[in-house]
Amino acid sequence: MIKINHIAVVVPDLEAAQAFWVEALGLPLERVASVPEEGVDVAFLPAGEGEIELLQPTDPESGVARYLEKRGPGIHHLCLEVDDLEGAMARLRAAGVELITEQPRRNAEGRAYAFAHPRSTGGVLVELYARRD
Amino acid sequence: MIKINHIAVVVPDLEAAQAFWVEALGLPLERVASVPEEGVDVAFLPAGEGEIELLQPTDPESGVARYLEKRGPGIHHLCLEVDDLEGAMARLRAAGVELITEQPRRNAEGRAYAFAHPRSTGGVLVELYARRD
Repeated sequence: MIKINHIAVVVPDLEAAQAFWVEALGLPLERVASVPEEGVDVAFLPAGEGEIELLQPTDPESGVARYLEKRGPGIHHLCLEVDDLEGAMARLRAAGVELITEQPRRNAEGRAYAFAHPRSTGGVLVELYARRD
Repeated sequence: MIKINHIAVVVPDLEAAQAFWVEALGLPLERVASVPEEGVDVAFLPAGEGEIELLQPTDPESGVARYLEKRGPGIHHLCLEVDDLEGAMARLRAAGVELITEQPRRNAEGRAYAFAHPRSTGGVLVELYARRD
């Protein structure tokens, strides 16, 4: 069973972005966190069983900062939650999909994740999350 | 309560796109439908309480075809489901967000929808759906 975990939107400024997503649209702002290992500050806006994440680059050398500079603000990636992350990665690899890291990484909460490269998914940066136990 | 209803991905070819989304990733293919009023064929891939929709342009003059030509394949829009569509549209308008149509449109299933223009949302084409009764 695959679920949409989050949609990440790159923005130049988290506070300014909240004018649309939180104040006008009405999504709740759950928390803001610094994620220095990805070079971003993140605002988490829960939406049903998933969430919208707003990403503001904090490091001009980060992938997110380069994306913002090249393509402008907008949707950066789509994250899907899978039952078995390593199994999903093996199936993608077998199908010729390029993974950005060979092994899953772990975020600050210990959750395992991996990215599939947009050049082998049809233009979408797809993140996979292991289902939370 | 706002939920993620779907993420729409524009692709040049629905069958080729299924090699990644259905065969490699394992999303189920629920159905494929023609939506001539938007100039697209759509494959619906349920994912938890939401879905991924793959859009293949069938009319070279459609907005989706122009998007594909200009930006290449990738995420086209994000659709959020809201309790009260007209109320949400009024709040967006009051906040200075540009709506693509003044009044909600209705799709083939009778569901009301509206789009907010990416130039006033921070680069994301946001569709709003009325919650299904």
